[in-house]
Amino acid sequence: MTFENYKLVRERTEHLCVNLETEDFVVQAEEFVSPTKWHLAHSSWFFETFLLKKYLSDYREFHPDFSFFFNSYYNAVGERTARNHRGLMTRPTVEEVFDYRAYIDDQMHGFLAKPINDEIRDTLILGLNHEQQHQELLLTDLKFNLWLNPLFPAVLNIKEYPKQNGKGWINIKEGIYFIGHNGGGFCFDNELGRHQYFLEGYSISSNLVTNGEYLEFIKEGGYSKPEYWHSDGWAWVSENNITGPLYWMENKNGYQYYTLDGLKEIDMDAPVSHLSYYEASAFAEWAGCRLPTEQEWEVASGKFDWGTRWEWTNSAYLPYPRFQKAPGAIGEYNGKFMVNQMVLRGGSVATAPGHTRITYRNFFHPPFRWQFTGIRLCQK
Amino acid sequence: MTFENYKLVRERTEHLCVNLETEDFVVQAEEFVSPTKWHLAHSSWFFETFLLKKYLSDYREFHPDFSFFFNSYYNAVGERTARNHRGLMTRPTVEEVFDYRAYIDDQMHGFLAKPINDEIRDTLILGLNHEQQHQELLLTDLKFNLWLNPLFPAVLNIKEYPKQNGKGWINIKEGIYFIGHNGGGFCFDNELGRHQYFLEGYSISSNLVTNGEYLEFIKEGGYSKPEYWHSDGWAWVSENNITGPLYWMENKNGYQYYTLDGLKEIDMDAPVSHLSYYEASAFAEWAGCRLPTEQEWEVASGKFDWGTRWEWTNSAYLPYPRFQKAPGAIGEYNGKFMVNQMVLRGGSVATAPGHTRITYRNFFHPPFRWQFTGIRLCQK
Amino acid sequence: MTFENYKLVRERTEHLCVNLETEDFVVQAEEFVSPTKWHLAHSSWFFETFLLKKYLSDYREFHPDFSFFFNSYYNAVGERTARNHRGLMTRPTVEEVFDYRAYIDDQMHGFLAKPINDEIRDTLILGLNHEQQHQELLLTDLKFNLWLNPLFPAVLNIKEYPKQNGKGWINIKEGIYFIGHNGGGFCFDNELGRHQYFLEGYSISSNLVTNGEYLEFIKEGGYSKPEYWHSDGWAWVSENNITGPLYWMENKNGYQYYTLDGLKEIDMDAPVSHLSYYEASAFAEWAGCRLPTEQEWEVASGKFDWGTRWEWTNSAYLPYPRFQKAPGAIGEYNGKFMVNQMVLRGGSVATAPGHTRITYRNFFHPPFRWQFTGIRLCQK
Amino acid sequence: MTFENYKLVRERTEHLCVNLETEDFVVQAEEFVSPTKWHLAHSSWFFETFLLKKYLSDYREFHPDFSFFFNSYYNAVGERTARNHRGLMTRPTVEEVFDYRAYIDDQMHGFLAKPINDEIRDTLILGLNHEQQHQELLLTDLKFNLWLNPLFPAVLNIKEYPKQNGKGWINIKEGIYFIGHNGGGFCFDNELGRHQYFLEGYSISSNLVTNGEYLEFIKEGGYSKPEYWHSDGWAWVSENNITGPLYWMENKNGYQYYTLDGLKEIDMDAPVSHLSYYEASAFAEWAGCRLPTEQEWEVASGKFDWGTRWEWTNSAYLPYPRFQKAPGAIGEYNGKFMVNQMVLRGGSVATAPGHTRITYRNFFHPPFRWQFTGIRLCQK
Repeated sequence: MTFENYKLVRERTEHLCVNLETEDFVVQAEEFVSPTKWHLAHSSWFFETFLLKKYLSDYREFHPDFSFFFNSYYNAVGERTARNHRGLMTRPTVEEVFDYRAYIDDQMHGFLAKPINDEIRDTLILGLNHEQQHQELLLTDLKFNLWLNPLFPAVLNIKEYPKQNGKGWINIKEGIYFIGHNGGGFCFDNELGRHQYFLEGYSISSNLVTNGEYLEFIKEGGYSKPEYWHSDGWAWVSENNITGPLYWMENKNGYQYYTLDGLKEIDMDAPVSHLSYYEASAFAEWAGCRLPTEQEWEVASGKFDWGTRWEWTNSAYLPYPRFQKAPGAIGEYNGKFMVNQMVLRGGSVATAPGHTRITYRNFFHPPFRWQFTGIRLCQK
Repeated sequence: MTFENYKLVRERTEHLCVNLETEDFVVQAEEFVSPTKWHLAHSSWFFETFLLKKYLSDYREFHPDFSFFFNSYYNAVGERTARNHRGLMTRPTVEEVFDYRAYIDDQMHGFLAKPINDEIRDTLILGLNHEQQHQELLLTDLKFNLWLNPLFPAVLNIKEYPKQNGKGWINIKEGIYFIGHNGGGFCFDNELGRHQYFLEGYSISSNLVTNGEYLEFIKEGGYSKPEYWHSDGWAWVSENNITGPLYWMENKNGYQYYTLDGLKEIDMDAPVSHLSYYEASAFAEWAGCRLPTEQEWEVASGKFDWGTRWEWTNSAYLPYPRFQKAPGAIGEYNGKFMVNQMVLRGGSVATAPGHTRITYRNFFHPPFRWQFTGIRLCQK
Repeated sequence: MTFENYKLVRERTEHLCVNLETEDFVVQAEEFVSPTKWHLAHSSWFFETFLLKKYLSDYREFHPDFSFFFNSYYNAVGERTARNHRGLMTRPTVEEVFDYRAYIDDQMHGFLAKPINDEIRDTLILGLNHEQQHQELLLTDLKFNLWLNPLFPAVLNIKEYPKQNGKGWINIKEGIYFIGHNGGGFCFDNELGRHQYFLEGYSISSNLVTNGEYLEFIKEGGYSKPEYWHSDGWAWVSENNITGPLYWMENKNGYQYYTLDGLKEIDMDAPVSHLSYYEASAFAEWAGCRLPTEQEWEVASGKFDWGTRWEWTNSAYLPYPRFQKAPGAIGEYNGKFMVNQMVLRGGSVATAPGHTRITYRNFFHPPFRWQFTGIRLCQK
Repeated sequence: MTFENYKLVRERTEHLCVNLETEDFVVQAEEFVSPTKWHLAHSSWFFETFLLKKYLSDYREFHPDFSFFFNSYYNAVGERTARNHRGLMTRPTVEEVFDYRAYIDDQMHGFLAKPINDEIRDTLILGLNHEQQHQELLLTDLKFNLWLNPLFPAVLNIKEYPKQNGKGWINIKEGIYFIGHNGGGFCFDNELGRHQYFLEGYSISSNLVTNGEYLEFIKEGGYSKPEYWHSDGWAWVSENNITGPLYWMENKNGYQYYTLDGLKEIDMDAPVSHLSYYEASAFAEWAGCRLPTEQEWEVASGKFDWGTRWEWTNSAYLPYPRFQKAPGAIGEYNGKFMVNQMVLRGGSVATAPGHTRITYRNFFHPPFRWQFTGIRLCQK
């Protein structure tokens, strides 16, 4: 772990913003997304708070209010910096936020020039993984924010709809398997508690469901037949008048979708994206299949390509055996979300290179779909 | 299965209402509860629809509109019989609903006088289990409806707060166990798919958490410390200003609770009731323990007393391996609820005698607490 | 003012309920309506509170909690008797409420057997006018409550859609006119402050707009053309998906409407009813006319028939010159509503005989339409 | 009317923005305010649409989509440019909007170099008045948008809290007065229909209510005593937890308020500002006075200083006699708002110089208070 490792991650974050106008950094279309500017500042705040302020006795903060403005963890700090007001913080300006990043990087340069102990090393690695998570959120939030812009700006080409080359079904035999992180390298706390798990035999698809296959589901009335849907899913479809994946826009000639590279024609062979758990599950039901559990996904993951879509599993996000919350602010992160959410496995076109792994447990509430989420089918 | 079996269940339903005034049968305080009258009619509708109309060629309906009014399954039938309007159906009157019940019973008497085949027998048993489920809902809905009545009427004494006699912790060893219904007697479809499950060793409490123990949690500030709560649970507490179990009412001298037998002093030794999953989980966290999974509960259930409280588990309500939805209206019942809900095991003081069993999977969304729900602690 | 006067008003209230079932008395479909039972009790509470308890030193209350349950004036008394919970008060029962009425009447009999002073006399008259207002609300609330009943019960025939016999336009000349109550007989405080008012010349219609004329407006797309509507009215139409008067129900053969006497065919010659101010105003705009101001209505009222519909005027409900709130609970009644409401003049088929007069100022928020409201056109 | 007149108004708009950062132009804190950028573009759109495109046969639009983006009049044009999404339009950028303004000004220069007819002249004057209205909204919206910024930026000093020098009460005698615009110079359509109006005698204050006087009302519990408030006002106070004027912030030492020039100490002698109609009315009730009607204000306006606060009157916004909506998009402006709003008279520190007059009728819904609104008392 050297400053070079740190710098590589940090520079990637800024590189994602190269084509943005100042105005693009500011807006927040819904409470569940954050402005680009906020991600840039918050990921810097992590290093300032948990390393520089903690271990450098003579450290001078860049700005006395920033630790208040860019902290995402506090409960009930009051209206002015409430999560749904992040898009109203016109000051500090974008330029000042980049100055803040530069200041932090400069300080970290000095800090990492000297030898570091294990505790610092662990926090540093956690901070870089944290920044990578915010890289993905920066991209997915940006897409959501710019989509509501009537000009559909093109700002980045991350090849959102790649080809895939898998073939047919993979069969896995009944047996006891080990689940969870095996101890080498970094992982989040929710991957720990490696444990045995009994699985009956099953088949899992080599490929993700494609746009073309999903269009068939739409055309056969998938969104208007309650029998494919969970009760909560049907309520969600009805109340929100959902008729297709997020970012799909119907016109006279068919559908287009919005990408960070602008409006595009639908690529029928590419994996479908931006679906809620409810939609993923209804599609599987319609197809006479089911979604895999997270254990089924993990056990079979060596036999298929993954990493372009976060794949909804049919597993609720729950603690593994012997799960323990780490003490303090850092450790609280994952445990408190272990209800009402479903596990997603894999990674996506927006995930930072090297960030994810087969034991990685991503999770979202069932209706959310602004991440690059997709479907892999399973059957007995 | 004779008419006597049928009659026993049916009479119990009506017996629960002996002390009610006509007005008490009508009201619906919130969308998630139904009027007493509606339960009385809907459980009759089941026998009319799935037995009498189906198998008696010359059957004459009691009233042509009742199958529309008292059907709970239809999707999107329109505003007038919408679930949240059940409390506005002043007609048919309570008397007419009892006439409807008598008519159905009379018809069933004739129907069951002749030999019945297995299909009919299965539907009959399902209908009686369905009626028993509505007996429990009738009681819990009634309690909720009357509680918002400023006079706190006393209408039934079901001994809501019984004593318990367990002792200490029960240890269960690591191993592979079988989970799910083993085939003898009636069960619901969600209990099928009996399968092997690997469990690490654990300890589970002989007793449920008591009112006295829960009061300690309240007094130590349990409802104001976010560290004990899931993120969603904390939001629920804050938005709804929750400070104690449902039906607890604070006054100058402490707490009272509302029961179907009127307002009572808190019995400190009786098991606490009317908690959401969020509260059950926060209490466990505060106590340095955890909730059991549904598998842990099922495996240990032979070693403790249960049946006075539905016990929140830390298992999300998900399909067992090889779960199949039965075709048609009847079979759809359980599958479509398998998201966003947590499993409860056991039974309660409001459960019909003989209705539940150790493989029974009850389920509710985490915030609900108008059932007689309680807490059994678990630890590694 | 004798007990006979009192008795006549009181008996009429109960007479309106003769065909109701117990269940019909209980329900409350929306917060803005009250259960029949509540009107019966609240109007009795008035006499108990402002006469019996005040002037009879040895008066014993019928029930110690009733003054709390049936008081409509209190601010912030807490959830249990909140306005939107009136429909949950199953106790006191309907029978107990009638007992309460009988008790009050019996006490009033004794009270009025002795000579009364002017203060008592004024309060008594106010109480009877208050009861008459609740007679009208009892009917209009009952209609709304029973309408959401899938059986559309018929409970009373008040000839909701009478014929009318007026002819053409009435011309009124420019001049200074006196507006407000002239001092003889009872009036509400909002009619006082008789004052001069300058009016330019205008024409006002002898007849109210009919169902047939209103149907033409519907057929010509009145509900889909924003140019006829106020900005707030258009938002109301759009958000609530309004396409016709309240209680009109479209079927294959045209329209029916619900009346207290059950579902009926539309009478094309009868005056249209159950319109919001927004609809009344949009119709007038479509017809190339306008609504009269309340002064124009009052000045011309001697020249046309009125009393079957409350007629929306284009006057906001504001104080007359020299308006003073009377001190105490009784006097507060009208003044605090003088914002955001429009004045209606006349009376309706549901108004108690002898209750209204040409200076009577009724008022409602613009979207409300469960009263028998109608349209009289005006033009320069 | 020359290009110089035009230029003077246009330059003032841009001058108001001199101290803004790019980010400040973009945000929209609530649906009822617009981003600064939007005002800059929309006021230019007016000249492009109603003059350049209409009268210059060879006019080339600056951008084909701008007439869609910056039109405020359309009904139901769809989500993407919905009023509550104005703050999400990151493109066109601020720089492009200034380019748009420069382009329009350049074209107008050419257009106005030639003689213009009366119709064009009238539209030009209307366009400049329209731009002045948006200057005021630009400032008041900007204040609201920046206030939710945790750094409370100071961007402009418009002397929001000036001194006043009036003395005592002014008496006006009973009589018939003329109300409405008398024909000389520009006015809006809602000022026309000059008419006679009978007024009883009254007294009106020379001065506006001051911050110091309003603070007394707060300290005496004005916000917690329902007797001073309209029923709707009390509901507004309770639901929104209102305890003082908008922008007032309590701290240990008392109050500060936010101004466009940053946070300031309260000036006790300056006129209070940023009150809703409900607050203005409750204050008047507390003070034993009342608000004037708009006729009383207009008649007396020659005898007091006005123009620093929009003064709430007790008149609802209604049409004058003979009011006619002008045909087409321009004329529709005022008529459709004539319900549910109260009239304000005068002008404010944010009003463009020369824009207002004694017959000017401003109007807002009673709860709104982000304009510079104040109180002038009246009594019989």
